[in-house]
Amino acid sequence: MTKNTPICALFSAGDAAWPDYAAALPPAFAAQGLTVDVSRDHAPETVDYIIAAPNGPVQDFAPFTRCKAVLNLWAGVEDIATNKTLTQPLARMVDPGLTDGMVEWVVGHTMRHHLGIDDHIHGQDGIWRAAFPPLAQERPVTILGLGALGAACAKMLTALNFPVTGWSRSQKDIVNVTCLSGNDGLRDALTDAEIVVLLLPLTDATTNILNAEKLALLVDGAFIINPGRGPLIDDVALLKALDRNVAHATLDVFRTEPLPKSHAFWDHPKITVTPHIASTTRASTAALCIAENIRRGEDGLPFMHLVDRSKGY
Amino acid sequence: MTKNTPICALFSAGDAAWPDYAAALPPAFAAQGLTVDVSRDHAPETVDYIIAAPNGPVQDFAPFTRCKAVLNLWAGVEDIATNKTLTQPLARMVDPGLTDGMVEWVVGHTMRHHLGIDDHIHGQDGIWRAAFPPLAQERPVTILGLGALGAACAKMLTALNFPVTGWSRSQKDIVNVTCLSGNDGLRDALTDAEIVVLLLPLTDATTNILNAEKLALLVDGAFIINPGRGPLIDDVALLKALDRNVAHATLDVFRTEPLPKSHAFWDHPKITVTPHIASTTRASTAALCIAENIRRGEDGLPFMHLVDRSKGY
Repeated sequence: MTKNTPICALFSAGDAAWPDYAAALPPAFAAQGLTVDVSRDHAPETVDYIIAAPNGPVQDFAPFTRCKAVLNLWAGVEDIATNKTLTQPLARMVDPGLTDGMVEWVVGHTMRHHLGIDDHIHGQDGIWRAAFPPLAQERPVTILGLGALGAACAKMLTALNFPVTGWSRSQKDIVNVTCLSGNDGLRDALTDAEIVVLLLPLTDATTNILNAEKLALLVDGAFIINPGRGPLIDDVALLKALDRNVAHATLDVFRTEPLPKSHAFWDHPKITVTPHIASTTRASTAALCIAENIRRGEDGLPFMHLVDRSKGY
Repeated sequence: MTKNTPICALFSAGDAAWPDYAAALPPAFAAQGLTVDVSRDHAPETVDYIIAAPNGPVQDFAPFTRCKAVLNLWAGVEDIATNKTLTQPLARMVDPGLTDGMVEWVVGHTMRHHLGIDDHIHGQDGIWRAAFPPLAQERPVTILGLGALGAACAKMLTALNFPVTGWSRSQKDIVNVTCLSGNDGLRDALTDAEIVVLLLPLTDATTNILNAEKLALLVDGAFIINPGRGPLIDDVALLKALDRNVAHATLDVFRTEPLPKSHAFWDHPKITVTPHIASTTRASTAALCIAENIRRGEDGLPFMHLVDRSKGY
C-alpha cells in the first residue's frame, strides 16, 4: 500500500557506507511502492525506521519514541542486540549478496584445503609432487551454525559431493545434510570431522565453543575455517591444537580487528589470516531487504528476520 | 545375458595400476552378470577385449584378431587414437570419479583466483588488506571444451553463480551456459573472458589454440586454468601474455611431464604448476564403466563413449 506522507528513515552507519546506500535505497523503496525520506539527519521523535550499523552514530535508541523497527545493516547483531536502550523490534540483515559471497568464500577455502592447494603454491621449486587428493565424497565437512549463511554453505558443499554434517542450537532439517543439535549432537558433529566451518552467531553459549576439549575430537589433520566470529574459538587452545591434530586454520574474524601486527596468528605457518573479507553486505542487494521490511511494517505484516532478544540472535 | 564361456580380457597398463584394477574389476563384472578372465597375460588371438592405457605394453594391436573393442583407461586418447595398428573400436574412459575430481580441481582453482586467495597466502605479514572480491555473478568464466569434463565443470560453476560461456567444436546445448562453436564463437568466447578453463581434447586443430592472438582477447587481469592438455597453449605466447594482460596461469599439464626442474614455468611468479593431478581415473569407478561396455559388447549393443577416429576424440 502506498503512503501519502513520506516515511521517515534514519540512516545510522559509518560515513563510508552512505554514498552506496544513498544510491541504492531510493529505487528499492520505489519498487515497493514506498515514499521514504531517508537521511542521516532526522529529529529522533520523527523517525519511523532506523537503518543501523551496530557501530553507527546512534547508540542511544531511547529518544526514538515512534520508531517501528531497527533494521540492522549487518548479519551479526551481538553488538546491538545487547544495547539496553533498544526496545524496538530489531531485524537482522539477510542480504542475498552477503549470503552468496559467504558461500563463495567458504567453498573456495574448503576446496583449497580439500585439494591441498597450498602445497603447490608454496612448492614451486621444480619438484613434481604427484599425489591425488581424495574425492569430496570421501571428505566429511561439519558446519557449526545452520542459519541463513550456514544453511546456504551446507547446500552448496552438498552439491559438490561433500558429506555435510550441520549443527545448530535448534534442530534443523536440510536435504542431504545430517542435521544435529544439542550437546551430544555437537560432540557427534565434531568427532572425526575433517573440515570444520564456523558460522554460529556469537552469544554467551557460543563463545569459545571450539575449546580444547572440542578441538581434540577432530580427525588428525583437520582443517578449521572460521568466517563467523572470532570468539567462537579459544585462541590459546587452537594454538595448542595446531601442534597436535589440527593441520591448518583459516581465520577471517578475530577478537581484535584489524588483527594486531604482533599477533601470533600472522606468523604461524598453520594459520591463514584473511582480513574479515569472507563476505560483506552489499548496498545494492541489502537495500532490497530493507525496503521489503519497511513495506511489511507499513502493511502491518510481521517483519522478516526478527532477532529473538532472549537468544541474542 | 550371462555367458557360459569366460570372456577373455587383457589388461595392458603400467604395473602400478594393476593391483587396484585386479581388485575392482571382478566385482564390477559380476554386477553385470559377466564371467571375465581378466589378466595381464593372454595370447593375442584369444583376447576379446583390451583394457588399455595409451602407454601400456600393447602398442601393436594387429595380432588381436578377435578383439571386439579397446577400452581406454584414460579420458585422453590422442596417444592411442593415432596408433595405425589399432583397427578395433576404441572407447574413451568416462569415469564418474574422474569427472568429479576434475570438477573439484576446477572449482577449487577458479575460486582461488576469483577470491584472490594467493594474496593472503603470500601476505601473512601483519598487513590487514581488507578488499572484497566481486561476487561470482560478476565474474565471467569461459570453458573451452564441452565434453564430459567441460560440461560437468560448466554446470557446477553455473550453480556457483558464475556466468559461464562454453566453446566446443560442435555446437552444444547446456542449461544456463552460453554455448558457442566455430571460429567466430571462439573469438566471442575469449573476448573479455576473466577466467578461462581449458578442457579440450588434443588434436591438430586444438594444438596451440590459445596462441598470442587469442590470449590478447582476454580481459586485463585474466586467469588461465589448464587441466586439459599442455599443447593447447602456445607456451612462448603465454609467457609474453603474462607480462601484458594475463594475471596468472595455473597449469596442470605440460608438453613434457614431469615438467623439467629447469623449466621457466616453475620459477615464474604468475604461474602455478600442479603435477598433473587435476584428476585421475579411479579404479573403483572406472571398473564400472569397463564392465558396462563389455556387457554392451556381449549383448550386441553399441559401445558407450566410442572415439570418432576421423576427429581424433
